[in-house]
Amino acid sequence: MNDDLESQLLAFRDSIDNIDAALVHLLAERFKVTRKVGHFKAKHTLPPADKNREADQVTRLRELAEASNLDPNFAERFLNVIIAEVVENHEKIADKT
Amino acid sequence: MNDDLESQLLAFRDSIDNIDAALVHLLAERFKVTRKVGHFKAKHTLPPADKNREADQVTRLRELAEASNLDPNFAERFLNVIIAEVVENHEKIADKT
Repeated sequence: MNDDLESQLLAFRDSIDNIDAALVHLLAERFKVTRKVGHFKAKHTLPPADKNREADQVTRLRELAEASNLDPNFAERFLNVIIAEVVENHEKIADKT
Repeated sequence: MNDDLESQLLAFRDSIDNIDAALVHLLAERFKVTRKVGHFKAKHTLPPADKNREADQVTRLRELAEASNLDPNFAERFLNVIIAEVVENHEKIADKT
């Protein structure tokens, strides 16, 4: 790869790295909230997972994805990875309570 | 669940929904950049995947995750879901070119 191509690729990667840092920080914030939800649910003996809520989230995120030109199937897969982690965390919190 | 618990749970979910909307919009922006990279790589016949770059991204994101108190293993899984999608998109673009 010549220097010109290399520097164009680096410029793209710089933007991707900035976006990824923002994504990580938002995810950290999201898990801060879901940890609170985990403790809240454990305290009030509410079930760790809520299928109706998850279905609502999927519908909403798919709509948001379509509106912002993101593949809705990808948005759904992405949400499922997060929800699986959250439910596992809720179960751990409930076991310790 | 009584009304008070219900409204506390709804307040948590409101924050989660706001964060998810931000995540979807950031992801949409990220894929806009990677689509450009896909066309760039196809035009200059560069390979769709770059293992060194991916290793750098994993290291960096794990460090960012630790610094922001996000599970680094989750951050890595999350990045892998995105990278798999990106490489697949790059391959599709290369096939069409």
